[in-house]
Amino acid sequence: MAYRISRDALCAFAQRLLETGGMEAAKASVVAELLTRTDEMGVTTHGTSLIPYYLPELKSGAMTATGIHEVVTDTGVTMVWDGNYLPGHWLMTQALDTCIPRARDHGIVTLALRRSHHIGCLSTLTRIAADQGLVCLIATSDPAGAWVAPYGGVEPVLTPNPFAIGYPGGDHPVLIDTCASITTVSKMREHINTGTSFAHPWMLDGQGHATADPTVVKADPPGTILPVGGLDHGHKGFALALMVEMLTQGLAGHGRADHPTRWGANVYLQVMDPAAFGGADAFAAQVGHLNDRCRTSTPARPDAPVRIPGDRVQAALAAAAADGIVLPEEVWTRLRACAVEMGIPLPDDDSTPTRKDTP
Amino acid sequence: MAYRISRDALCAFAQRLLETGGMEAAKASVVAELLTRTDEMGVTTHGTSLIPYYLPELKSGAMTATGIHEVVTDTGVTMVWDGNYLPGHWLMTQALDTCIPRARDHGIVTLALRRSHHIGCLSTLTRIAADQGLVCLIATSDPAGAWVAPYGGVEPVLTPNPFAIGYPGGDHPVLIDTCASITTVSKMREHINTGTSFAHPWMLDGQGHATADPTVVKADPPGTILPVGGLDHGHKGFALALMVEMLTQGLAGHGRADHPTRWGANVYLQVMDPAAFGGADAFAAQVGHLNDRCRTSTPARPDAPVRIPGDRVQAALAAAAADGIVLPEEVWTRLRACAVEMGIPLPDDDSTPTRKDTP
Repeated sequence: MAYRISRDALCAFAQRLLETGGMEAAKASVVAELLTRTDEMGVTTHGTSLIPYYLPELKSGAMTATGIHEVVTDTGVTMVWDGNYLPGHWLMTQALDTCIPRARDHGIVTLALRRSHHIGCLSTLTRIAADQGLVCLIATSDPAGAWVAPYGGVEPVLTPNPFAIGYPGGDHPVLIDTCASITTVSKMREHINTGTSFAHPWMLDGQGHATADPTVVKADPPGTILPVGGLDHGHKGFALALMVEMLTQGLAGHGRADHPTRWGANVYLQVMDPAAFGGADAFAAQVGHLNDRCRTSTPARPDAPVRIPGDRVQAALAAAAADGIVLPEEVWTRLRACAVEMGIPLPDDDSTPTRKDTP
Repeated sequence: MAYRISRDALCAFAQRLLETGGMEAAKASVVAELLTRTDEMGVTTHGTSLIPYYLPELKSGAMTATGIHEVVTDTGVTMVWDGNYLPGHWLMTQALDTCIPRARDHGIVTLALRRSHHIGCLSTLTRIAADQGLVCLIATSDPAGAWVAPYGGVEPVLTPNPFAIGYPGGDHPVLIDTCASITTVSKMREHINTGTSFAHPWMLDGQGHATADPTVVKADPPGTILPVGGLDHGHKGFALALMVEMLTQGLAGHGRADHPTRWGANVYLQVMDPAAFGGADAFAAQVGHLNDRCRTSTPARPDAPVRIPGDRVQAALAAAAADGIVLPEEVWTRLRACAVEMGIPLPDDDSTPTRKDTP
């Protein structure tokens, strides 16, 4: 069972939840739009399903509901902003709106953002620039969090440190979205909540043994999430984690050295214009050729052709455009509970969406 | 058994080999210096041991011996150069000499270099900028090469696509140097030459099965090197490979779409100045704190504390400064053979170095 809803109805409902939760209307509009877009892209773990997590943050003040960021440094092509824990989607929209025209003017621009709140799905953001023909790199870390051990260690020191890169890819953008650890905190929590193990040993217990059991994070000493490469070649994932910490915290001049205890996101954003390098057409020719070469290469399983990152997003967008957004029942249950608690009418009551059980 | 030699004697010997092989004196001087420095850093696979591979390339004209690169585009902070297959160490020295002062002026500068010859050890290059307080990222690919399959595929399409990032780290720079595949072409060749298997299944045979046997690359259909993450989570390594191909070939406007058959390196170089972001001191505080936190975290094995990338290089540099450079016997044998063939006196004959057997 799943819940099918039109994008306009979901977006309006999301905005109403956030506004009623205390977020300024202009910010709620931006956050709702990007969360809805993430659901359209098929990434329902990072779409409107985040609202039930954002509402208590707004209520407690951990997510700042009003105001703007501070510009700490601005040289034209390099910037540092302090986000004052404002909604991350709104901050990143401001950041992209600032960086995209500058990338066209200068060829490249880089912004380090400290003390943002959660910025959601990185691909939703890189896609905005990639759809305009630009290369966009986003990395993020949480200097108050520790879930991953350095390679060779057993103590949690690092966050999974996701990074994404989007760029024009022919029919649709290439949307790489990955991280420095094998799996993520949210996937780990999902397995803990459902009482299931990972399919592979992606965790490390407090004694340094690989395990598929996610509950080792609750043991004493606590387990950790393994870096990309695992015990076999996890020095590579550790290197990626250090790189992301440096880009997001070192350049921003704020991070673990300040011992923050409040959940927060440090973000590195870079936008480049292929026109300022070898040219947009030459870029498209190279990327298009490689994508085709990969997609048409012999697959290991004849029924599973090679996919380029972004292909699945494109299919999800087409399906959502044709038939509306499909949310997992669990997501809809949590959103509905928020609405009921806040006295907000459900989209069904507004008669805009159509409830259907998916086949 | 190994061969111990002073850095000055090795550098002079290397320069003489390259000059006699046909390389312009000014270029041979730069290449010899960087190869020697790489040996000092303990990376003897990428130091003067490369000269016996470079000499036939010089002789055949595959490595261009004289002349300069062409500046294709230059906007001030973005550039494309065409390297005309000149010695990569020399081209990268020109590139760093151009980019380092510009990074200080503008905060960030990025250069895409196409049609370079081999650039050697990436960390030797990133370290030049990192030693001056800058962040330096270098990625490289060979558009004529194919050793790695896209994730889900079995056909070789991509190169291992190394990338390195160096940045100031307190006592000495952090020198991350990794790649998108689990292992490298040179390590694979080493195992084939010595008739040994890898310790882990880091290869993929032509039918899509993981194997530790490097000789599968010679089978029909040929095997490939697995991307980082292997069969378990190799979509992450594949994503890194695509990223490096885009940065090095897409931005340079030259690559696989041109079907080059000549070995060549496409390179992406980015230099950033922390002073143009949150400041050099704030950068050092964040990076230093994280490095210390990692190094002092509980190790899995009490006798093996966590290391930060660059720590081993620093130890090798100290050892080389105290006792000279130690080359593997196999490397010295090959260098000596080149000298004999070209009628160049050995360093021993020049009475400058001291031959010692290492304990």
